[in-house]
Amino acid sequence: LVVFNSLYTDGEWALSWTKRAAEQAEQVAAICCSGHGRAYLDGLVLDGKEPVCECNSCYGGPDCSEFTTDCAANADSGNPYFLEPFWMQHAAKSAILVSGWHRMGYSYPDDSYISAQLEASIRKLHAVVGNAVTEGKYFVFGAGSTQLLNAAVHALAPENSSSPASVVASIPYYKLYETQTELFRSLDYLFEGDVSSLKNISDADHVIEFVTSPNNPDGKLNKAVLHGPNFSAIYDRVYYWPHFTAIPASVDDDLMIFSLSKLTGHAGSRFGWAVIKNESVYQRMAEYMSTSSMGVSRDAQLRALKLIDVALETGGREIFEFGYTTMKDRWEKLTNTLSVSNRFSLQKIAPQYCTYFQKIRGPSPAYAWVKCEREEDEDCYKVLEEAKVNGRSGSEFAAENRYVRLSLIRTQDDFDVLIQRLSELVLEERQQPIYAIANNV
Amino acid sequence: LVVFNSLYTDGEWALSWTKRAAEQAEQVAAICCSGHGRAYLDGLVLDGKEPVCECNSCYGGPDCSEFTTDCAANADSGNPYFLEPFWMQHAAKSAILVSGWHRMGYSYPDDSYISAQLEASIRKLHAVVGNAVTEGKYFVFGAGSTQLLNAAVHALAPENSSSPASVVASIPYYKLYETQTELFRSLDYLFEGDVSSLKNISDADHVIEFVTSPNNPDGKLNKAVLHGPNFSAIYDRVYYWPHFTAIPASVDDDLMIFSLSKLTGHAGSRFGWAVIKNESVYQRMAEYMSTSSMGVSRDAQLRALKLIDVALETGGREIFEFGYTTMKDRWEKLTNTLSVSNRFSLQKIAPQYCTYFQKIRGPSPAYAWVKCEREEDEDCYKVLEEAKVNGRSGSEFAAENRYVRLSLIRTQDDFDVLIQRLSELVLEERQQPIYAIANNV
Repeated sequence: LVVFNSLYTDGEWALSWTKRAAEQAEQVAAICCSGHGRAYLDGLVLDGKEPVCECNSCYGGPDCSEFTTDCAANADSGNPYFLEPFWMQHAAKSAILVSGWHRMGYSYPDDSYISAQLEASIRKLHAVVGNAVTEGKYFVFGAGSTQLLNAAVHALAPENSSSPASVVASIPYYKLYETQTELFRSLDYLFEGDVSSLKNISDADHVIEFVTSPNNPDGKLNKAVLHGPNFSAIYDRVYYWPHFTAIPASVDDDLMIFSLSKLTGHAGSRFGWAVIKNESVYQRMAEYMSTSSMGVSRDAQLRALKLIDVALETGGREIFEFGYTTMKDRWEKLTNTLSVSNRFSLQKIAPQYCTYFQKIRGPSPAYAWVKCEREEDEDCYKVLEEAKVNGRSGSEFAAENRYVRLSLIRTQDDFDVLIQRLSELVLEERQQPIYAIANNV
Repeated sequence: LVVFNSLYTDGEWALSWTKRAAEQAEQVAAICCSGHGRAYLDGLVLDGKEPVCECNSCYGGPDCSEFTTDCAANADSGNPYFLEPFWMQHAAKSAILVSGWHRMGYSYPDDSYISAQLEASIRKLHAVVGNAVTEGKYFVFGAGSTQLLNAAVHALAPENSSSPASVVASIPYYKLYETQTELFRSLDYLFEGDVSSLKNISDADHVIEFVTSPNNPDGKLNKAVLHGPNFSAIYDRVYYWPHFTAIPASVDDDLMIFSLSKLTGHAGSRFGWAVIKNESVYQRMAEYMSTSSMGVSRDAQLRALKLIDVALETGGREIFEFGYTTMKDRWEKLTNTLSVSNRFSLQKIAPQYCTYFQKIRGPSPAYAWVKCEREEDEDCYKVLEEAKVNGRSGSEFAAENRYVRLSLIRTQDDFDVLIQRLSELVLEERQQPIYAIANNV
């Protein structure tokens, strides 16, 4: 029997077994990476020394101080580093010390794979933000929204039906819906692409529609296109937070999916949750999670609990103001940069009343959905790539290659380089007026 | 820009932002649960006070000091709490302090979802233990062995074949192979049950064989039954550690799966790894992990790294001696208890030379595979249940109900109650000699 004594001296804890871990964490945090990178506890260690700096794109050298001047802007993946400074500013509140014996077993005290504490905190957060109705609904946790997407398709497809359910989405859509649904090659469902591909659809056919709202890539607050007794929708709501959109109302869809990644910025933790109205759909999703991976890492659940509780401390005020201000500033810089261009255009998002901030607020989307307007610029990805801007091609969203998605939620460094490259591109456009006019005719 | 200063005073770190988390962890660890439970950081908090004790089965009360005398022994799931005391004894070494901004992004510096540091530590551990050849092989991480099992089936099933691959195992087998393979209802594979069900098998048929070695439930060092160009095996090696078996040789199977759960006892972290010889099988498994969940929680990977590095510090000596001694003692107590019974028998495991301990060693299996010998005891689970022993029925392993699996890897409390209940049962048997003889004729 190991006894952990509590030692108070002068009203302070005299730390014992946690001291070494705390010191290690402070030492790693104190490694200088010039504000253009950070070192991690589990970073690469060279020659038995401390972990190395992991630098932002375009920065290098042992302390990330060397800027590569001709470097391409990385605006590809949705790595949500825009919230990293927030967590550095709240270092003391958001740290957790995990003991070696923390939650070794499979189950929580209620015999489930789901932390009741975490579920309660998430319900509280939705209530405080007012973005989703959770009363009387069921929760399932997954490894990010990713794992829950297929769990939802599985749960909504009718069992033992003679023909597979059709899985559809509206173009432009997040490509993972397609690759994932196809990966599993199930007898129960089949990816059919765009909603409009369903010609001569009858009420007897089973259709599962992915609705992303706000949409990835274009930020639109999409709604389900199909309605009928055999049509069901999976609402991917991962961007439905005040960082990225006005919250016009608390949504009450039958099946909604959220993730830590786009709420607190912790994509690496792989944690998401589904909010489900129907009990049998809930049971099938829970069975899927249990049979495919015995639930979500309890370490990820502990982390999510701490981070969400920090967000809750101020009713979400601190994190959402930080997130919204950051994203709004970035959007304004981007629109200013491209405002003088005839070659590139951006999606339009109207200002809207936000019930959370209780005011009309402007756009602050996670992604820019850029269109190359010149007739010859059919491959917009290539046009931007040549100008050292790496986005994600329209074809990755089942859309025309005339479109490119630019991620705006990455590090400030990534965003700054992006604006620099786009400014150069627009400057070049304006310095070639004859060429541009000739081609615009 | 947030700067984390390093403050040394008198050769000691003056802790700043980590102090609160360290204190919280020590406070929670100091909560008295009488050695029959523990409190967790994310435990249920009543009336805003500190987290409550989570007690072992048969113990209750606010500090887990109340023993329920007529309580049933829980010998069902493979919750590996037998290693919990080891981690409490190594509290300082195994603690980690996770900062709020730890690994927020999707990728490690090499753009993968897999920590290169962790992969290197796992390779080192296999080399030190000498249980598996990893040189020149590929690694894929999953949410426990669970997620990797289906990833492996997916990767080994031929693509776009006209008929699905047959998935088989040898009875008795771990039931999840069946429930999981059936859950996904894939066009590419079909669960066919026992190997012997494959009548008139030809070399042209594709067969995927699950081989569990040591086997769950009976601890046998199984080998693949089928051999041929279209037959492949998934070696579930999660119990192939010195805790549970002699290590006769370093195994070199084409596809092997291991897990943290049965190595360090951290089932809740949901972390496992596959060691793969063939590059294209590796690529398909990696694609599966990426598309189904974008890899494994980076928090779980950080935890696994710390725990495995602690195990490595002494070449595994400390943890494996602790594990082996614990399991061997339990097996000896169990065999002693049942040695005077004619009603119940146990699987036989011969002593064997262990290359890790460099000596011949006796059995220390994770599970007892109990047989009810009396003709009328057809439902062995029910017989034991009436005697307040909850195991897992033979039918859960596709075997006869005359068998029951008893888990030996749970808490010491669970094991002690199990031995007490079994002793009572054997005593009862010996006090009814006439009945017993009459029925044994």
